[in-house]
Amino acid sequence: MTDITTTLGAGSDPSSATRIAADVDMLATPEFTLPGLGVTRYAYTDAYARTLHYFEEAFRGFGFDVRYDPVGTLIASNRPPGERCFGLGSHCDSVRNGGRYDGTLGVACALEVCRLAHERGLDLPLRVFSFLEEEGSGFGQMLLGSRIMLQRVSDDDLASYRTDDGVSFVEAAREAGFGPDRHRESIVALDGLVGWIEPHIEQGRVLQDTGYRLGVVDAIAGYIHADAKVEGRADHAGATPMGFRSDAAITAAEIVVELDGMARECSDDVVGTVGEIHLQPGVINVVPGTAEFTLDLRSTSDAHAELAERISAYGRSRAEARGQRWSYRERQRVEPMAMHERVVNAVERAASTTGHPWRRMPSGAAHDTMLVAERVPSAMVFVPCVDGISHAPEERADPADAALAAEVILAAVRDLMKVERDA
Amino acid sequence: MTDITTTLGAGSDPSSATRIAADVDMLATPEFTLPGLGVTRYAYTDAYARTLHYFEEAFRGFGFDVRYDPVGTLIASNRPPGERCFGLGSHCDSVRNGGRYDGTLGVACALEVCRLAHERGLDLPLRVFSFLEEEGSGFGQMLLGSRIMLQRVSDDDLASYRTDDGVSFVEAAREAGFGPDRHRESIVALDGLVGWIEPHIEQGRVLQDTGYRLGVVDAIAGYIHADAKVEGRADHAGATPMGFRSDAAITAAEIVVELDGMARECSDDVVGTVGEIHLQPGVINVVPGTAEFTLDLRSTSDAHAELAERISAYGRSRAEARGQRWSYRERQRVEPMAMHERVVNAVERAASTTGHPWRRMPSGAAHDTMLVAERVPSAMVFVPCVDGISHAPEERADPADAALAAEVILAAVRDLMKVERDA
Repeated sequence: MTDITTTLGAGSDPSSATRIAADVDMLATPEFTLPGLGVTRYAYTDAYARTLHYFEEAFRGFGFDVRYDPVGTLIASNRPPGERCFGLGSHCDSVRNGGRYDGTLGVACALEVCRLAHERGLDLPLRVFSFLEEEGSGFGQMLLGSRIMLQRVSDDDLASYRTDDGVSFVEAAREAGFGPDRHRESIVALDGLVGWIEPHIEQGRVLQDTGYRLGVVDAIAGYIHADAKVEGRADHAGATPMGFRSDAAITAAEIVVELDGMARECSDDVVGTVGEIHLQPGVINVVPGTAEFTLDLRSTSDAHAELAERISAYGRSRAEARGQRWSYRERQRVEPMAMHERVVNAVERAASTTGHPWRRMPSGAAHDTMLVAERVPSAMVFVPCVDGISHAPEERADPADAALAAEVILAAVRDLMKVERDA
Repeated sequence: MTDITTTLGAGSDPSSATRIAADVDMLATPEFTLPGLGVTRYAYTDAYARTLHYFEEAFRGFGFDVRYDPVGTLIASNRPPGERCFGLGSHCDSVRNGGRYDGTLGVACALEVCRLAHERGLDLPLRVFSFLEEEGSGFGQMLLGSRIMLQRVSDDDLASYRTDDGVSFVEAAREAGFGPDRHRESIVALDGLVGWIEPHIEQGRVLQDTGYRLGVVDAIAGYIHADAKVEGRADHAGATPMGFRSDAAITAAEIVVELDGMARECSDDVVGTVGEIHLQPGVINVVPGTAEFTLDLRSTSDAHAELAERISAYGRSRAEARGQRWSYRERQRVEPMAMHERVVNAVERAASTTGHPWRRMPSGAAHDTMLVAERVPSAMVFVPCVDGISHAPEERADPADAALAAEVILAAVRDLMKVERDA
């Protein structure tokens, strides 16, 4: 590892940062995004096809073969399908009016790892994935490409997915030249993978605020998304004395305050958020009869499931104390996913040799790696993003951090493949 | 008063209830309302003109003269303008998709008082007003007819009032045949008035829930309408640990809970309501960066002004404790208006002779009487409405209660006019 240590000791190769910036900035130009502020890129659009084509050309430029799985996940490799390889990648779709870094920076960083390996004559067996519809903004289904690959999507499910304009996922995939009827065959793309690392922007402010240049992700939080509803009684705000009211907003507000307290007193990795509140009838001079609000509860353990139990019990008790109806319905429950200690350790060792500050941390956001990790020993590497802003045109990350991530990942992969080879 | 006591002792005249119901029900038919559920009646619409015409015919039927002030407030009297009279009335405009009772029942009840006085040959000097745009749903200005009459509206103000569709109040008034340029002359309609009573549905649930058939209003609450805003910081709900957040919703929720507590521990007549809450960006997986909410604070004393001071100080302190920005802006501040003790007492004496349960109470809602009372000794009489529901098609009141109110008002007016004559 002497060569790499030398490189890293001097910081990352400046040309890596320049190349990553060039890729990411190019893919933010009008050719590669739907109209509007920032980047908007959904699967099967022309802008998306051009983005895949851009990566295809780049990979072919240094001899990688590029294929697609039956729904259009890009797979670039310097080995034939099924051979022993190390996997890297992320996604290159975006939310509506998102930034240029979320997902795309990860694919660009994986591309840079391959480029560096090629330039240095390392002949590492690598396979890069660019998943589709991770954000779910095109067809309303998050992590869609990786969920399809892990066979989590039934034929009926797939047939039901549509854009807001009613365009069918299956039709759109066919028109784009793919074979969505064979979607269950996507899983073969994982054959031979001995490990997986996904680079991604953090989407939070922890790295920035604590002064670290890299985050080594040891677990991806599971989450519960739920909808709660309190039904009291709407009354005239002037004509109804306090003692005659059944105000749904008070109950909802108590729950918001209590959730904050409960999450803070739990283990460090638990978060709880009320992101939406809707009052009915929602006018200044009427006591709210109904309050509906959302719950987003996460942890890398099962602490968020316990939090869900506690906050819904609290909500029920407060509503019942006022003679109000309480309802709580879970929209989605995703289990946490621990990263693989061997891969995490290899990334940590590589990060340590750089002399740059890094930290171990959980990912609060969901990523395609949650799915890949079910089959392949996995980790993720986070790079800081300015003020934690993501999913917005203002999203910013430093290409130099991504270049540092590329060096660390390359070193970790060499380390892991050597161990693997030596074993 | 023997004749009336006898009548009241047997309950109200059953034909009064029938007549009031006939008037109110007729004015809920399609001829008298704009299209849609319930009753929608704005000043200067054809439906409104037909409503005024209906009352005009009714008053002329027993010899009352009907005139209009320069903006179209109906004035029916059995005496020439300016002569000594007792005033009665309410309004006959409505909110969008409102009920048939709010306002209109008061005018119908005043009409019934005049009808009874005429039938019984009492020759009481009476003057009935039907104000316009009390709800403000047509031109966005509450209590507009009575505020114009009390010269609270400048020429510039009046020239600026428009419907949502951009129709000018002044133009609409002119087209309806009125002379809005002379609006400051409206005040002469009060000349000679020695007292004023407005019958109205309660719009609350106090009478129903406490088993009273009439409410004798001794004060109309003043109110403060304000907009508050907390500005924290929007962050990813998964990627932002609790300790890194500046969640605006928590601060807003604390204020909602605190306001409820503060209002309950104040004097009995204080109410405080948060009727609207808007979170930004308002999505399930983003920590709210901004929370905007409304405050509606009322009392018949100055307790609501004190509550405004206390809750805004609390809000500021909670926001500042989190490093958040706090803003508080008053939209409107209306002073409470005490009713005139002599008129209140006369109504109470009349109510007591009926044998039916009645109670003294404040009005939490604003009414035209707040304005009239500045010049004329005034009171209001409330009749119960089912479950306190108002401003909705489901609004219901019992015409028998309105008939009882008519008898009580007639007796009170006779009492007051006799005292006045004897003095």
